Amino acid sequence: MRYHRAVPSELDDDTALAPAGGGVYRGNVSDRWGVLSGVPNGGFLMCYAMRALEAELPHPDPLTITAHFLRPGQVGPVSVHVEVVKVGKRNATAVARVVQGDREVLRALSTFGGFAAEDAPLIAAAQPPALPAREACVSHASGPAPLIARRFDNRLDPATVGWAMGKPSGEMVIRGWMRLVDGREPDALSLPLFADALPPPVFNAVTPGWVPTVELTVHFRARPAPGWLRAEFRTRMVAGGLLDEDGEMWDDAGQLVALSRQLAMLPR
Amino acid sequence: MRYHRAVPSELDDDTALAPAGGGVYRGNVSDRWGVLSGVPNGGFLMCYAMRALEAELPHPDPLTITAHFLRPGQVGPVSVHVEVVKVGKRNATAVARVVQGDREVLRALSTFGGFAAEDAPLIAAAQPPALPAREACVSHASGPAPLIARRFDNRLDPATVGWAMGKPSGEMVIRGWMRLVDGREPDALSLPLFADALPPPVFNAVTPGWVPTVELTVHFRARPAPGWLRAEFRTRMVAGGLLDEDGEMWDDAGQLVALSRQLAMLPR
Repeated sequence: MRYHRAVPSELDDDTALAPAGGGVYRGNVSDRWGVLSGVPNGGFLMCYAMRALEAELPHPDPLTITAHFLRPGQVGPVSVHVEVVKVGKRNATAVARVVQGDREVLRALSTFGGFAAEDAPLIAAAQPPALPAREACVSHASGPAPLIARRFDNRLDPATVGWAMGKPSGEMVIRGWMRLVDGREPDALSLPLFADALPPPVFNAVTPGWVPTVELTVHFRARPAPGWLRAEFRTRMVAGGLLDEDGEMWDDAGQLVALSRQLAMLPR
Repeated sequence: MRYHRAVPSELDDDTALAPAGGGVYRGNVSDRWGVLSGVPNGGFLMCYAMRALEAELPHPDPLTITAHFLRPGQVGPVSVHVEVVKVGKRNATAVARVVQGDREVLRALSTFGGFAAEDAPLIAAAQPPALPAREACVSHASGPAPLIARRFDNRLDPATVGWAMGKPSGEMVIRGWMRLVDGREPDALSLPLFADALPPPVFNAVTPGWVPTVELTVHFRARPAPGWLRAEFRTRMVAGGLLDEDGEMWDDAGQLVALSRQLAMLPR
């Protein structure tokens, strides 16, 4: 695999796929990445699509992936079916279907390519989120957190998690330091998971509940350096029963490594 | 059609599709929506996908569409091939392939649903962009503008179009008032076109050139009221040969009607 690691990794173990030929890959969804209801996290399920796509496409870097979530996933066997749409000189585009039993759980559309050389122009109109020191942050895994929170060593800005103590700030933002608990370093494969792993920022404005994702898009902007990610997720508007959630993820070297945006349904 | 109009409309005429059965629709790409090279605009091509999707799906409101652009389109015959992925009670998801000759020009993945009733919670953490009065703005169709600019009566904030006079501001933002020149009102069908119709904000920081879109996602947030749209498009980061472009579109009633985000390639 392109993302070979010498150290044990929960994420790599749990998203391991065996090629079955014809663009089909088979694996197993473990019970370690569940949200409060026990259903596997959506960003985690996207990692299966990522692994199959990187195995099928010749280009080194994922540039963008969009997943539409069709129904909740479940613990147990999973298969990924890749259809290569086009392989060009610079980019390649493919569809990945994540299937459990005879039910399609999500459909993803993705383009891979290659980041330009390091001397390519860099123009930044954004900077990493300002975060309190990690010692002053709140562990995500404390309190009644879902299982997936225990896969991370996330440290959240206390100003953004008042809702967990019954004191929502009213500002629909959550930010913090993120890394996997077993020390597995961030890479492109894992970024859709990071993009969906924190509590929804809308919890600062409405009573927490299940916020099912309709669609999640991740833009990959640089290969993450080892170390902590700094992340901020923000909701701009709740309307018509739907809400947006924009995320920025920055690596330890100060690079913007991913932008995410999801459309989700308001808790009912 | 759901978007029936009593008045003549360039957009509706040019994106008219005839059903050919089996989820296939046929039409013709006119020469009126070209960018500087004469190639049809990408957001315009997405309108063909939108029309075929709305004809195939039972739900009233598009919620999200993502298009991956595979190769430049051209003037001439076009077909759209819809595959319905899932029809659920609340939402329905489908793929649309836009094909010219035997070449797939773009592939789109979209979910339709229905906006909740007007008494659904509305929580706004954003507001329409502050724009100068229309009389103080610059017409987009003046100067060496592409053909597509003549389909609009866009009025751009002068602070954001200095690049057109050789005086780029350095701030990667373009904002302004937008409407179609023939008075055709905005609706969901047209929002992907609006999302891709202004010059790229990166022109305020790099020498203008062709900025091919890799992927464009539009989230639909409300049904647009008649009148002018207020829009702002902003690039956060140019890196690795790629750039993002986020857009907000607000209607005359002060509703956020769409969020857009594209990943594009830096002019070379």
